[in-house]
Amino acid sequence: MAALFRQMTLCGVGLIGGSFALTARKLGLVARIVGLGRTQANLDVAMARGLVDEVTRDPALAARGADLVMLATPVMTFPETLAAMGPHLPEDAVVTDVGSVKEWVVHELEPLIGPRMALVGVHPVAGKETVGAAAAEEDLFVNRRVIVTPSGRSTPDAVAKVEALWRATGAKVERMTPAAHDAILARASHLPQLVASALAASLEHEQIDGKRAIEYGAGGLRDTTRLAASSAEMWRDICLTNRAAILAALKLFRGTFEEFEDAVERADADQLIALFERGRRMRERLK
Amino acid sequence: MAALFRQMTLCGVGLIGGSFALTARKLGLVARIVGLGRTQANLDVAMARGLVDEVTRDPALAARGADLVMLATPVMTFPETLAAMGPHLPEDAVVTDVGSVKEWVVHELEPLIGPRMALVGVHPVAGKETVGAAAAEEDLFVNRRVIVTPSGRSTPDAVAKVEALWRATGAKVERMTPAAHDAILARASHLPQLVASALAASLEHEQIDGKRAIEYGAGGLRDTTRLAASSAEMWRDICLTNRAAILAALKLFRGTFEEFEDAVERADADQLIALFERGRRMRERLK
Repeated sequence: MAALFRQMTLCGVGLIGGSFALTARKLGLVARIVGLGRTQANLDVAMARGLVDEVTRDPALAARGADLVMLATPVMTFPETLAAMGPHLPEDAVVTDVGSVKEWVVHELEPLIGPRMALVGVHPVAGKETVGAAAAEEDLFVNRRVIVTPSGRSTPDAVAKVEALWRATGAKVERMTPAAHDAILARASHLPQLVASALAASLEHEQIDGKRAIEYGAGGLRDTTRLAASSAEMWRDICLTNRAAILAALKLFRGTFEEFEDAVERADADQLIALFERGRRMRERLK
Repeated sequence: MAALFRQMTLCGVGLIGGSFALTARKLGLVARIVGLGRTQANLDVAMARGLVDEVTRDPALAARGADLVMLATPVMTFPETLAAMGPHLPEDAVVTDVGSVKEWVVHELEPLIGPRMALVGVHPVAGKETVGAAAAEEDLFVNRRVIVTPSGRSTPDAVAKVEALWRATGAKVERMTPAAHDAILARASHLPQLVASALAASLEHEQIDGKRAIEYGAGGLRDTTRLAASSAEMWRDICLTNRAAILAALKLFRGTFEEFEDAVERADADQLIALFERGRRMRERLK
């Protein structure tokens, strides 16, 4: 495949950015990749693993010559990172990101790009609990959903090229509005995270007769709380940047949780069956 | 190992009972195993897989000659099953069970056993979502916790023999009061089930712009809702028979969930970090 961009500057060489870079280099999707990072140790790993051609901690240096900027740091640092690079970017650079929320990103970044630049919001739905360049892996996006959220400052050409990059990784690429994306992900991703973290946090100190309750959980407790191992900083940022949609999702869950609580309280056998069956049906469809 | 019992009658040849029978036969822990069941199809599978020596659907027939009765049907059917067998059991039979709740079981079964019989409540903490004799497997209990809950009608001899059976399966056997067991399991097992089912049920019909939200969940949604595939009947029974302890566990979770909800509502960055970190710490300890 002929390279779609001359130079991609990857801001944040972590799991998602690093995995994309690995694939992009292998397939020749971009001619050259510059990694911008905050900690030298992670950048050293990125170089050692061959994720990028070059690394720097200087946004100005990283910006020079980049016809594609991919923001892959924690979402709330996007504006600061882009602002620091802004004056040094080619005037027709394409800016894209891999953030888990999209309305906030579009709203914050659009004012920061030059008049001839384009912004293409993207969310590759492919998480793991592991972080950093060391966790990057080549096939992370194969058959995963990658959601592209065109907005007022997306040009058709930029959208097409960014979609071509992601399609080449083996991902299933589709388009949505930023608002639809945020509402869907609040339900399918952010809500499970908050529920798993709340469950884990609620059990942290529980003891009965001197025995720690969590030691008696089997695989079910383990699965249900697995997400709680995720980065607190990442999830703080998602909560702050997708607040309204997350509150709606929390309210949705709370309503159903209260139905369960009420059915247990009233010892309502039929209602308990109906509720557990609703959960089972959803789960059947998830397969 | 010399057989500890002449004949075990296993009431309910499902995942737990069937797996125990498989191990017991292989190791010669009991001389003979009779499987009592409701559906001939499952009993046929049990015979074909060699889980038991003999099968019947008649409680009176199953009772004859049994010096050990293991109740492994859904918990709420224990009293009815034991009552039907009662008049036909040897007068010094030991009754045990594998139910997930213990206070209710002890309370309901003690009045049903003869004056020279003994009752030993047991909970092997080893679940899967699969059910039936077909799901039975030999090593299900290796390194799993098996909780024995001696009560007023447990004799030291009966407790010792039942514990010896379970220890032989490779399980980690320990004792607790029925009340402590129920409080611990309400937190470590029943709460995660209800949370997972409520999460799954809340998302069943969610659509945004004609797209089904759950189709956009990654591995996290899958893990967090895995338990929702469990049997509705089994969980109805657990809710009804461990109601007070489960209500306390639900209240515990609800308090923490509301802390998360409040922190999102107030966009309190520090509090969000503190809450996600609490969840992370619990999860670290679970490993």
